[in-house]
Amino acid sequence: MTDRMLNEASVIILAMRVSELGEFGLINLIHSNISRYENLRHTPWQEVIVGIGDDAAAWQSDNHISLATTDTLVQDIHFDLDVINWEELGWKALAVNLSDIAAMGGIPKFALLSLALPGEVEVEDISRFVNSMVHLAQEFGVAVVGGNVATSPNVIITVTVIGCSKGEVILRRSTATAGEQIAVTGYLGLSAAGLEMYKGNLILDPEISKMLRRAHFKPMPRVKEGQILIEQGVKTAIDISDGLIADLDHICELSKVSARIKIEQIPVHPAVAADFPNYQELALSGGEDYELLFTADKTTIARAKQDLNCPVTVIGEITKEKLPARVTVVDSKGNIILCRQRGWEHFKHGVSEVKFA
Amino acid sequence: MTDRMLNEASVIILAMRVSELGEFGLINLIHSNISRYENLRHTPWQEVIVGIGDDAAAWQSDNHISLATTDTLVQDIHFDLDVINWEELGWKALAVNLSDIAAMGGIPKFALLSLALPGEVEVEDISRFVNSMVHLAQEFGVAVVGGNVATSPNVIITVTVIGCSKGEVILRRSTATAGEQIAVTGYLGLSAAGLEMYKGNLILDPEISKMLRRAHFKPMPRVKEGQILIEQGVKTAIDISDGLIADLDHICELSKVSARIKIEQIPVHPAVAADFPNYQELALSGGEDYELLFTADKTTIARAKQDLNCPVTVIGEITKEKLPARVTVVDSKGNIILCRQRGWEHFKHGVSEVKFA
Repeated sequence: MTDRMLNEASVIILAMRVSELGEFGLINLIHSNISRYENLRHTPWQEVIVGIGDDAAAWQSDNHISLATTDTLVQDIHFDLDVINWEELGWKALAVNLSDIAAMGGIPKFALLSLALPGEVEVEDISRFVNSMVHLAQEFGVAVVGGNVATSPNVIITVTVIGCSKGEVILRRSTATAGEQIAVTGYLGLSAAGLEMYKGNLILDPEISKMLRRAHFKPMPRVKEGQILIEQGVKTAIDISDGLIADLDHICELSKVSARIKIEQIPVHPAVAADFPNYQELALSGGEDYELLFTADKTTIARAKQDLNCPVTVIGEITKEKLPARVTVVDSKGNIILCRQRGWEHFKHGVSEVKFA
Repeated sequence: MTDRMLNEASVIILAMRVSELGEFGLINLIHSNISRYENLRHTPWQEVIVGIGDDAAAWQSDNHISLATTDTLVQDIHFDLDVINWEELGWKALAVNLSDIAAMGGIPKFALLSLALPGEVEVEDISRFVNSMVHLAQEFGVAVVGGNVATSPNVIITVTVIGCSKGEVILRRSTATAGEQIAVTGYLGLSAAGLEMYKGNLILDPEISKMLRRAHFKPMPRVKEGQILIEQGVKTAIDISDGLIADLDHICELSKVSARIKIEQIPVHPAVAADFPNYQELALSGGEDYELLFTADKTTIARAKQDLNCPVTVIGEITKEKLPARVTVVDSKGNIILCRQRGWEHFKHGVSEVKFA
């Protein structure tokens, strides 16, 4: 391309709106603007181990690796106050950030809360919100040390969690290699089934209904599990927030590999399989499961499985990079039933939030 | 109070709306909910040096004190896109956080950006926003290492800055003592004058107009100045974001002292004094100056003044606590012209955002 063509290409990009560029495009744009400065040979860039593109940012501190992550939940985009209650909201706002630290195999330590809300919110609801958040924080030995409050026409919650590595290793998205197995903790699709239950007003068995509600509104981040993965020698992981396929695609993109998963091996809870005809779709792309997706050689996976106090299922394997398809889903006969193309952003459900650290 | 009375009092508080409780009341509520857990004798609470209530949270790390602060800017509450441009917005969103680190005398190191925005925003504007933020980050040796993007009906920007102390000391709000002088860097009221110029469509001299615009939309945080204050032995500081009186009141509240300032000594830029009849009000309560307000004995202040490469003005002194008035403003004859009562939240302008770390 000539310089003029390049300039014209940038003009085309710059004349776009964010909705046309898409979330991943937006992240790439932000990243490319920032990365012009990344290579400077001075601190703190020198200390950065993982910048934009993983579950959390990571940098070298004196005797450990520091980790930091942030997530914003916007009313009517990420949650609906007619469905979620304030206690669940406080829990979830912290949980999604703890899950990012879990996906790095780290120890979460400090949290900051930024809370913007309309004046008509009940004080009692804020009490419930904070108590629930602090309860979860306490569960994982996290101190909520500060933040800020502001007026806003809608409720906006941003939580930042700062943590550190256990030892000198962290789990990354960029270290998967061909031949490794792909495994997940827990069941997939529970959270999306929970949301569907509320959206469709489905009446289910009270125990199942409770489990689905909890999966969607009060997810339990796999913090201890992430640390066990590190101990057992796993190097690559991500938490499932966008959905199995989308998140596996993130690993493939950053590791420059492809992946092949077997649909029949994906762990679906029997209750979801029984009550939701679209359970495979929920498991593949529902998202917000906050389970850990990880890759390693067979022996390491077997060892991790033995040590983890939760279901661990091998669902496929990492293969050499084959573009444009990166993630391929096959049935029991080996027939391809779904391909995720390179750069293909949405799979049924829109992605409304994307991490860039 | 009997237990029953106490219970009834809590019921009254809980039946309130956030607007009735006010922002400082909301922070107290959040703080009291969190502080139930603060005294537990385990990490990371053990490591916390400053929790809720200062400019930034602080905790003990291996060889230094770590600092973290976060701030959210909400469209139409904190900024108006008809007035501020995206380049200024990117700058300001980071600057207000750097100012919090400056008020602790710290070194800012890493920043996270959480950006929620509607799809119709122009990609070019986001480019300008990010470039300007990174430009300021670069100025202070800060690496923007991550964050997240999300869809939202309005633009919401949350920046988190993580830093560390220079040596083992930080500036605090809680260490002022009676007899100390009160000093400020720079001029006060420039930022509020800038906003008033735009709101009132005032036509001023182009150079002055430019200076006022910059003061409000592209404030320069006093990062190096905060570090110099530490070197010179100052222990108490806050940045002026809510306004001189409100921020001095924060120091008084946490230090359990009162303050007396002389209105004629408050540094007002000649252009503001000439063009804005209400210049004293702008300087006392305009806010968003992002200058440093600090207290120390006479010798320390004189030494700091010599070392600082900006105007430093002594505006009054810290006195013994006299409730209910905490901050008293006097004229040249010593007549009291304004008192800030304990718990009195607003002074003319409403406070739309309040830090609790």
